[in-house]
Amino acid sequence: MLLGAIEGGGTKFVCGIGTIDGEIIERISIPTTTPEVTMDQAMSFFSNKGIVAIGVGTFGPIDINPLSPAFGSVTSTPKPYWSGYRILDHIKQRMDIPVGFDTDVNAAALGESVWGAAAGLRNCLYMTVGTGIGVGAIVEGNLVHGLMHPEMGHIVVNRHPMDSYAGNCPYHGDCLEGMASGPAVEKRWNTKAMLLGDSHTAWELESFYIGQALANYILVLSPEIIILGGGIMNQKHLFPLIREQVKKRLNGYVDHPVFASDLETYIVPPSLGGSAGLCGALALAKKALMK
Amino acid sequence: MLLGAIEGGGTKFVCGIGTIDGEIIERISIPTTTPEVTMDQAMSFFSNKGIVAIGVGTFGPIDINPLSPAFGSVTSTPKPYWSGYRILDHIKQRMDIPVGFDTDVNAAALGESVWGAAAGLRNCLYMTVGTGIGVGAIVEGNLVHGLMHPEMGHIVVNRHPMDSYAGNCPYHGDCLEGMASGPAVEKRWNTKAMLLGDSHTAWELESFYIGQALANYILVLSPEIIILGGGIMNQKHLFPLIREQVKKRLNGYVDHPVFASDLETYIVPPSLGGSAGLCGALALAKKALMK
Repeated sequence: MLLGAIEGGGTKFVCGIGTIDGEIIERISIPTTTPEVTMDQAMSFFSNKGIVAIGVGTFGPIDINPLSPAFGSVTSTPKPYWSGYRILDHIKQRMDIPVGFDTDVNAAALGESVWGAAAGLRNCLYMTVGTGIGVGAIVEGNLVHGLMHPEMGHIVVNRHPMDSYAGNCPYHGDCLEGMASGPAVEKRWNTKAMLLGDSHTAWELESFYIGQALANYILVLSPEIIILGGGIMNQKHLFPLIREQVKKRLNGYVDHPVFASDLETYIVPPSLGGSAGLCGALALAKKALMK
Repeated sequence: MLLGAIEGGGTKFVCGIGTIDGEIIERISIPTTTPEVTMDQAMSFFSNKGIVAIGVGTFGPIDINPLSPAFGSVTSTPKPYWSGYRILDHIKQRMDIPVGFDTDVNAAALGESVWGAAAGLRNCLYMTVGTGIGVGAIVEGNLVHGLMHPEMGHIVVNRHPMDSYAGNCPYHGDCLEGMASGPAVEKRWNTKAMLLGDSHTAWELESFYIGQALANYILVLSPEIIILGGGIMNQKHLFPLIREQVKKRLNGYVDHPVFASDLETYIVPPSLGGSAGLCGALALAKKALMK
């Protein structure tokens, strides 16, 4: 029994075919151009593959309220052509199978909870730090949706005392994403992030911002594990710096044995590595099938 | 069919008898002294009342993990005598009925979701601003627990530019609770909060802090309604100020019609008024009975 998966990103759509056990057996990458062209290419890939359900984890913001008339569409995005585009309708016109539809980060959180680092846990958080900062969460076994879906990348952070960068979020200036996304790092230092040496002050600031955001998420959601992915987190030396900042911020307040540890098993990279997003979409397909 | 309810606070324990429909038919208030004396008085109240389940919503931090050996106890509290006290065991030794046990704020959130302002909704937030700042949340119909339980009152906030008060949280200094709890307001202005006039600058600062915290909770949890209770929120003029701050902070980013409104139906006082806590404990009893 095969499932389809779409990891919809601002630069590329990765499409895959996988099994119900999370094994990806085929994948392609399609550039994100106009929605019609991109989605047509994606649907062609899936045709005649015999898939029984499909999952879509996509960039947003998106409408994930099944009761809303705009359910399954991209809402207001600065990305040209995509505002208001009805992804779900496009798929349903082509295929009469169950479709799972959620944010890219909720999908990744689900994938890690089904087959990855959060397997067996009922509460987890997945954060990606790259072009933007996105976070997906599972609470008591359910993806967090609510009124629409979380946008945790935009929470308030305190500035590092040495940091005079204004922040580049068009809505909030110096919110978390405005201070700690990949483009923010590059604009602050006028250098590609991957070219900044491991001992560059950039990483002290980066861990300061990510660490305080994680401390906040811990205080609000009390996740059982935190998974950090995305381009910036390929800088593996950030992990110990971030763990240290989290402990410093919480300052012994959250009374659980895990916070007396070095957090090495609490703040971790994705088990599914670069496939976290695609496996997440596969997990959405599996969930849609089981429903 | 009658249920018992205990709202355990740092100053007093309110005990009540109520119906499965949330009607409180009898209540008493017991001063919080040593745990043995306080709990003995509570148990005497409930004896021979014919209750079929009991719910406890209590101050904390508490251990609410059913798999933990310390399940049902108060963990590390500065409150004399209560650290490590096993509330649940005390009750179970006296009564062989189902017991619901959770934080005071989770109980209040549950009460409001069963019989109050959040009835019919699957996602809500209840915040109390008083001696401390506590928040309970329901996500997709479940109380948020996770690794332990949320401690949202301690999130990071940005300082108001006019505010030089150091903050009074013993763990974090100027976290939300350190800046905006009742005692913080009173220490900052050296006046009882209830004696500060409606136009006092204190309330601009207070709404600034509470508003940014709510904006953060909205970004993380996407609640369908936010209920604000506690002593400080008896200052009803704070509601419009807080709603304005929330809108200012989100700055149009969260693309949902509710945020284009004046938020009058989104950020509200408890429907259950001063009984939110006790009704919450009653809802915990009902939940324990249904389980």
